[in-house]
Amino acid sequence: MYSFKNDYSEGAHPDILKALCACSGEQNAAYGKDKHSAAAADMIRGLCQSPKSGVAFIGGGTPTNVLALSALLRNPYEAVVCADSGHINVHETGAIEYSGHKVIEAPVSPEGKLSPEDVAGVLRRHETEHMVVPKLVYISQTTETGTLYSKAELSALSAFCRENGLYLYVDGARLGSALMAEENDVTLADLAALTDAFCIGGTKNGLLMGEALVMQNAEMQDHLRWLIKQKGFMLAKGFVVGIQFEEALRDGLYFDMARHANAAAAKIAEAVAQSGFEFYSKPQSNQLFVILPPEIAAEAHEKYCCNIDRTLPDGRTVIRIVTSWATTDEAVEDFSAWMIKQLCFGLVKSIIEA
Amino acid sequence: MYSFKNDYSEGAHPDILKALCACSGEQNAAYGKDKHSAAAADMIRGLCQSPKSGVAFIGGGTPTNVLALSALLRNPYEAVVCADSGHINVHETGAIEYSGHKVIEAPVSPEGKLSPEDVAGVLRRHETEHMVVPKLVYISQTTETGTLYSKAELSALSAFCRENGLYLYVDGARLGSALMAEENDVTLADLAALTDAFCIGGTKNGLLMGEALVMQNAEMQDHLRWLIKQKGFMLAKGFVVGIQFEEALRDGLYFDMARHANAAAAKIAEAVAQSGFEFYSKPQSNQLFVILPPEIAAEAHEKYCCNIDRTLPDGRTVIRIVTSWATTDEAVEDFSAWMIKQLCFGLVKSIIEA
Amino acid sequence: MYSFKNDYSEGAHPDILKALCACSGEQNAAYGKDKHSAAAADMIRGLCQSPKSGVAFIGGGTPTNVLALSALLRNPYEAVVCADSGHINVHETGAIEYSGHKVIEAPVSPEGKLSPEDVAGVLRRHETEHMVVPKLVYISQTTETGTLYSKAELSALSAFCRENGLYLYVDGARLGSALMAEENDVTLADLAALTDAFCIGGTKNGLLMGEALVMQNAEMQDHLRWLIKQKGFMLAKGFVVGIQFEEALRDGLYFDMARHANAAAAKIAEAVAQSGFEFYSKPQSNQLFVILPPEIAAEAHEKYCCNIDRTLPDGRTVIRIVTSWATTDEAVEDFSAWMIKQLCFGLVKSIIEA
Amino acid sequence: MYSFKNDYSEGAHPDILKALCACSGEQNAAYGKDKHSAAAADMIRGLCQSPKSGVAFIGGGTPTNVLALSALLRNPYEAVVCADSGHINVHETGAIEYSGHKVIEAPVSPEGKLSPEDVAGVLRRHETEHMVVPKLVYISQTTETGTLYSKAELSALSAFCRENGLYLYVDGARLGSALMAEENDVTLADLAALTDAFCIGGTKNGLLMGEALVMQNAEMQDHLRWLIKQKGFMLAKGFVVGIQFEEALRDGLYFDMARHANAAAAKIAEAVAQSGFEFYSKPQSNQLFVILPPEIAAEAHEKYCCNIDRTLPDGRTVIRIVTSWATTDEAVEDFSAWMIKQLCFGLVKSIIEA
Repeated sequence: MYSFKNDYSEGAHPDILKALCACSGEQNAAYGKDKHSAAAADMIRGLCQSPKSGVAFIGGGTPTNVLALSALLRNPYEAVVCADSGHINVHETGAIEYSGHKVIEAPVSPEGKLSPEDVAGVLRRHETEHMVVPKLVYISQTTETGTLYSKAELSALSAFCRENGLYLYVDGARLGSALMAEENDVTLADLAALTDAFCIGGTKNGLLMGEALVMQNAEMQDHLRWLIKQKGFMLAKGFVVGIQFEEALRDGLYFDMARHANAAAAKIAEAVAQSGFEFYSKPQSNQLFVILPPEIAAEAHEKYCCNIDRTLPDGRTVIRIVTSWATTDEAVEDFSAWMIKQLCFGLVKSIIEA
Repeated sequence: MYSFKNDYSEGAHPDILKALCACSGEQNAAYGKDKHSAAAADMIRGLCQSPKSGVAFIGGGTPTNVLALSALLRNPYEAVVCADSGHINVHETGAIEYSGHKVIEAPVSPEGKLSPEDVAGVLRRHETEHMVVPKLVYISQTTETGTLYSKAELSALSAFCRENGLYLYVDGARLGSALMAEENDVTLADLAALTDAFCIGGTKNGLLMGEALVMQNAEMQDHLRWLIKQKGFMLAKGFVVGIQFEEALRDGLYFDMARHANAAAAKIAEAVAQSGFEFYSKPQSNQLFVILPPEIAAEAHEKYCCNIDRTLPDGRTVIRIVTSWATTDEAVEDFSAWMIKQLCFGLVKSIIEA
Repeated sequence: MYSFKNDYSEGAHPDILKALCACSGEQNAAYGKDKHSAAAADMIRGLCQSPKSGVAFIGGGTPTNVLALSALLRNPYEAVVCADSGHINVHETGAIEYSGHKVIEAPVSPEGKLSPEDVAGVLRRHETEHMVVPKLVYISQTTETGTLYSKAELSALSAFCRENGLYLYVDGARLGSALMAEENDVTLADLAALTDAFCIGGTKNGLLMGEALVMQNAEMQDHLRWLIKQKGFMLAKGFVVGIQFEEALRDGLYFDMARHANAAAAKIAEAVAQSGFEFYSKPQSNQLFVILPPEIAAEAHEKYCCNIDRTLPDGRTVIRIVTSWATTDEAVEDFSAWMIKQLCFGLVKSIIEA
Repeated sequence: MYSFKNDYSEGAHPDILKALCACSGEQNAAYGKDKHSAAAADMIRGLCQSPKSGVAFIGGGTPTNVLALSALLRNPYEAVVCADSGHINVHETGAIEYSGHKVIEAPVSPEGKLSPEDVAGVLRRHETEHMVVPKLVYISQTTETGTLYSKAELSALSAFCRENGLYLYVDGARLGSALMAEENDVTLADLAALTDAFCIGGTKNGLLMGEALVMQNAEMQDHLRWLIKQKGFMLAKGFVVGIQFEEALRDGLYFDMARHANAAAAKIAEAVAQSGFEFYSKPQSNQLFVILPPEIAAEAHEKYCCNIDRTLPDGRTVIRIVTSWATTDEAVEDFSAWMIKQLCFGLVKSIIEA
């Protein structure tokens, strides 16, 4: 049975692998100083309309976040502000704290989005040398619950950060899905214009591994390679990531793969809606959060490997469904049919009980 | 012109790539909990005759060293002892110190090998709470200058460590070349029997990336996955490394590749010997360190990308020549011919001058 | 005008200074290995009825907390659980995070007390290697809002910790005031029996500086002096703290001073009650948290240096009043009179307005 | 018997204690924001003829070094260069490495002094992102072996640092003794002019505790109080150190105490010279390093607590003799007489043996 557990169960898109094989006999400069990485970085600067941005290719999402935050926060008493559900706050095993910085969590709604007011509240509580200095705002696009910041929301947060001397970093582990979302109005150029840095995730969108860290802030790029090496994030064969991004971006494959994932999720979302179940957060990208009775959630977990996200106070269960570039039409149809069947069973059951 | 700069200029052996492509459509468990990683770990345990060893696949050499040392040294006042030329002391941008531990360097000969006496000297100087506690001995096989620890040397060091409550870790970034070296008498089973942990390098021996950390010490395996994640070293698609090791080890490809690299180096070493130049350290593996007049060294650097390793007090230059699984016979012959030509030029020059 | 800002505005009790002067000509062993520190440690073990406890004298509160947590949490992925108002969470500038550990905050009531249920909730949310491992519970006695854990509460928390493999540490920066509080039923012997470690604060109770860290957990004492030194917390003249604790504990001066501070606070609390103002948290120790109209709070801040603690949603202000061993009767009477006067003014004002 | 083990065996000079007692009833601002600390800082700026220097009072030597280096080195890949005998390299239990920075040791002579050439050698070996960035030079005045940098030596090192973008920090744990040494030609004003920061040690010169960190570098002072607090070095009663420095500096007591210690050492050095024993390093300050036959060294250790510093290759032993502000004339005469007696014994022994 197909697993909807995550978007990194499969290897890489065949075209990506083909590109890797094609270049494999070449001798390339080591440590990311190769021509493929250079070409991919140029493509990204072009897409971002940001010719001065620095681009570094890193092997995974957590190291990319750690690197970006370490490069921006040069002093250990400087802290990060994020939503309480933020990936760095919950799901990176304290990697940011291990690098010395406090993560200040702001309580947010199921949509998982941080507002200027949330950050302002944090600033008000941090005034003296007995407290850390909030210095960077971390958000994800898409968020941990699959939702999207609109351009208006992102612009407001960016303006607030600039007025208050805060850096803004966007974790784009699933940026492909965000950019291709139907309701999205944020472009790569907007991200470059509004942030100090953001990343473009490859691991969750059809690459074997790799994220592109895109940096507009000039200071964070000073001695960046020393930081990358010291933290153990420098790949000897950096070209392995460079080649994949080059291939993914050259003819739009990166965006096609994200569009495919979104389309699959949209079909499933339709089935959810038909079956009468509620969404925990708005279905906008390749991650769906659906509220189910516990026994149906358990079956979704068992049959389709859906993650159990949380139990609500009323006893209902939230499951997470994730689609990817590799999700087949059959898998979508099968899952959708199963979902609709749950409604039928429910109806029958209630009729019998009545 | 072919570059002898290092053994990680090319991608991966075609068979490795083929295996990656073959598995790419599968859905695999994430974060290294997949069947390929499990199979490769089993093969390693078998080769090591060490059924209880733990095996973790990591993306690169520096993260593997950092992880191993962090897992063994649970307290920041515990320090590592290594040769002054040790990779962790010189070429990892202070990654060990960044994790909080002091690296104590012991001055060693050009052979780059640490003896029990070297370590004993360090222990004598560290007695009170005003000094760090030497707790782990780090060596490399092959060493930074391409030499080999014999089984007798390794056994003596291991015995000394055990008598003195020290851990022993062997950095095997180039372990393939060591194991296949003509003069080698150390087996994988010996390494498992004599060390707390060691690694089997893939990046420098034909894989796209990846090292296998092999752990005999039971305590270091407690919560190892938490350490891996917190340091940013956990690959979402861990199976990408697992598949490569599975393929490399199944039919001996790993060893064939190392044998090929050694054979190429041996041919070049022969040419060096014929041309009358001296070796800085004994030529035993796929790294050669040759002493040349500065102008010839400069040409080797320019034409063949050989690293300039150091300048000797007498003004002569040491260059490093590295071969790999991918080094072609033509490249070896071309370089050997150039090397022998240097002798001829030298002879002619001295005749003319005389 | 007398300041009620904190309990560390004055130097030390005259008897403490006399003891320091009396011993000043002696030659004492350095780094805390002196006879005074040994004698004071023995007194503490006696008071705690815990002959095997280790005792270390440290120069201040934050270093004592950092040391205790570092000695108990040997792995950086292990985290501390505390009340959101916890001193380590808010007022130590991220010192715990700087040492690599995440601080997990649990939201609690104005009483600032953590319950087994609060901790259980945290445990439920931390299951895999993608999350830190909650491993230590940190509480303060008295709490940040001046309240007391009862013996029943402390016992329940201790039992929960032991059942769940968690360490329990009690920050006793104001332990003197807690022990001497009228409603207190927790003894030093109880603390020793129920915790892995706790500290007895001197800085806030009549000493020039110094805290005694009392450790029942045997493992945390291994190589403790190395930790103390590495963190920069080892005093060359450790006997300066040892002499003070020896003097404070010999004839009960430590407890007399705390009793004095509590009595002063109790008198002020009475005046507060008479004046009709509410307490933010229960008045139990030498810290009072009183809810005042903003303009009266401002006057308390200006005239008596009372800290403005927070603004409530309804616009009223919480001030903190702190008494100490050095607070004079005149200061208490003056402040009490002022407080009662506020009621009169309020009454007159409301009569006029009516 | 009097101990010559170190210069921190006694408490504090009676005048220092008198000042502490005199101020003890006052209410002072906490955390070093008091009038005494302000006055002492002004005195230091005056003595240094450096009205813009920042001054921070810290509780001990290791925290002062850690603070200074952390404030100057904002990035963990930046490293410190020091003599192999440097206090931070040997005797601070890896405190600098714990803060993330590598300490690069340069081998130096028994005089323990670092030259521009030593540093230049380090710079030459650190070129790429695979190595740390040498960024700060650490020296001690007096050195670990009691010797002095002359003004010419200090100026040369300072000039070299400025030309090469390196910070210069002078650890003045024994700066009093250095300033009052007969051969000294370096003033406080010179130190201020030539360094980024240096410290004036109090603990080893008659104070209960405390060092003054004097900072010329403006950037290191940004958010310094946050650093101090986060590292656990902020004293609640900072005025305790401020009062002591105020008293020590007001009428020259600080310098008188150092002069006393130097005079005592000079008398002992004379006796050493008379007895015919050699010095390991030049006797210039309150620390003497004398080469003795092992049995005489053992007696010096037993009777006078002299530290055994090291054993020379020829089997002779180096002992350390330390005098202080508190060393009595009787103790000096007694020790000198013992020293001279060793010569007599030696003579008699050799006559008998002949």
